[in-house]
Amino acid sequence: MAVNKQWIYAQKPEGDVGPQHFELRESETREPADGEVLVKTTLLSLDPASRAWMAGRTYRSQLEPGEVMAGWGLGEVVKSNARNYSAGDFVSGDFGWQQFATVPGRQLTKHDRRQKPEHILGVLGVTGLTAYFGLLDVGRPRAGETVLVSGAAGAVGSIAGQLAKIAGCHVVGSTGSKEKCEWLTRELGFDAAVDYRAGDLIGQLRATCPRGIDVYFDNTGGEMLTAALSRMNVFGRVACCGVVSQYNATRPSPGPQGVPGFLVTKRIRMEGFVVMDFYGRRAQAEAALAELVESGRLKAPVDVVEGFAKMPEALAGLFAGKNRGKLMVRV
Amino acid sequence: MAVNKQWIYAQKPEGDVGPQHFELRESETREPADGEVLVKTTLLSLDPASRAWMAGRTYRSQLEPGEVMAGWGLGEVVKSNARNYSAGDFVSGDFGWQQFATVPGRQLTKHDRRQKPEHILGVLGVTGLTAYFGLLDVGRPRAGETVLVSGAAGAVGSIAGQLAKIAGCHVVGSTGSKEKCEWLTRELGFDAAVDYRAGDLIGQLRATCPRGIDVYFDNTGGEMLTAALSRMNVFGRVACCGVVSQYNATRPSPGPQGVPGFLVTKRIRMEGFVVMDFYGRRAQAEAALAELVESGRLKAPVDVVEGFAKMPEALAGLFAGKNRGKLMVRV
Repeated sequence: MAVNKQWIYAQKPEGDVGPQHFELRESETREPADGEVLVKTTLLSLDPASRAWMAGRTYRSQLEPGEVMAGWGLGEVVKSNARNYSAGDFVSGDFGWQQFATVPGRQLTKHDRRQKPEHILGVLGVTGLTAYFGLLDVGRPRAGETVLVSGAAGAVGSIAGQLAKIAGCHVVGSTGSKEKCEWLTRELGFDAAVDYRAGDLIGQLRATCPRGIDVYFDNTGGEMLTAALSRMNVFGRVACCGVVSQYNATRPSPGPQGVPGFLVTKRIRMEGFVVMDFYGRRAQAEAALAELVESGRLKAPVDVVEGFAKMPEALAGLFAGKNRGKLMVRV
Repeated sequence: MAVNKQWIYAQKPEGDVGPQHFELRESETREPADGEVLVKTTLLSLDPASRAWMAGRTYRSQLEPGEVMAGWGLGEVVKSNARNYSAGDFVSGDFGWQQFATVPGRQLTKHDRRQKPEHILGVLGVTGLTAYFGLLDVGRPRAGETVLVSGAAGAVGSIAGQLAKIAGCHVVGSTGSKEKCEWLTRELGFDAAVDYRAGDLIGQLRATCPRGIDVYFDNTGGEMLTAALSRMNVFGRVACCGVVSQYNATRPSPGPQGVPGFLVTKRIRMEGFVVMDFYGRRAQAEAALAELVESGRLKAPVDVVEGFAKMPEALAGLFAGKNRGKLMVRV
């Protein structure tokens, strides 16, 4: 069997995650047992949630040092002992950070070879579906309303903001640099952008959301959430998607002021969600996203890092805000 | 015309509200103009929201020093210049803290004389409706679930907890003394109670809510909210009714840790509400509450203070947690 390079989650990070928390290991590729499939990975996804998995229990069990680092990926079936799969199939799954994965067939999803691999892992995968269900089912924007998206230059935020534009909303994105702000308005069609590193969040929100905020798609938590709550309109909705401002924190930050005071006086609904809860309608949503991408109405920006060796650096770069759109590594 | 005693909101409180923030004034009763009604007040309601109105803008405009203190009450029409009202009618409205109120007829609600005055201002009025819509429409408990109610010995909490029992839930109330805890379980049928002044909230919640919390009816905010979030189950709901822990605070307390982190990982919905938003279904809800009270399934505890002179003390007592059930003053 081929040699399998793997990135091992070696040490629990305190604070910023970086290459020092991972170790490269070579092991033998394992033959697929009955019901299993051997996959050669081609693209691996990097997500803010990866950091949360290292910190504690979330919607999945906590990762333990010594395990192969977890992560979604795309690959090609090399050998199959599972029904419905055969060599050459194009599949995605939770392969982990490794060149070969031996996994149960029932954990895989098969894809159409005509679709771009970057799209399968991005706009048509967990990322796009998270934006789709979070914005439309949890946030429920109506045409003419104002939608604020934090982490707007990231994978999910860049899609959520564009979907809000397609829904006829005034859309404002927050991100961490002037350049990314410009990218949001020029390239992705956001109406305005807020640079959270430039300070005076309330002032920036007042300027960019003159009619208040009806829907806040929150990828970050932290100060932006506190500021957004103070500008929310009556019957506003906060779709809680992630807490990227906190994943690298060494101690929990205080919660947002305005909870629950503003929730009561402004009748705000804050609701957390995890994309898997909506998978009953996955096919429908994928089809809708695919059509928007094909027609050119929805851009699916990707940031592809070349080389499996760069996985840990790429993850650190995600938290430093280096990517634009969906970050992935070509193995 | 008769002399009208009025309690004037004299000074904005910093910290605990007390008699020093009010002044008794005597003025002349004003004749009702066209469309107005002169009402002699008989019962005045004391509510935690009164304190919030003094602090800033809420769902109603802020009270300004020099104005008659605002508040709901029940009374009898003395003289009417409004259609549909005549002397002797039994009416409720935002009369303010005064013996006579001259108010537009369209702001009044007429009541059946056969109903107990204390019930009209309590379980069949704003208090009961707040518990009803907040628990059933916002919290949406299902039989077998665990419901936690904070401020459970108060006007709204005592009704919300009993409604949750009627819905077939395991019901736990939090309140501020051992005596009130006993009252909740012995008199009102709560399954268990938590004394928030006894410390170790998480431990108390673990003991009383062994299967976690599905619905938290939150009257208080503060530490109980933080503790409850850590014990909420997946797909839990928090009905944000009030923030009584904060109304007397001199500076805003930090928000609850776990927002938005727990909301995401546990897919929790937190939603604020104001009872007036549900008034389209008010008659229906009143009828349901009246039937429950008449059949003896719902107790409507009231705490009646005798004498208009005691209004300010009674309000201070509300925040000291002296009342059990709905607090009102007989004028």
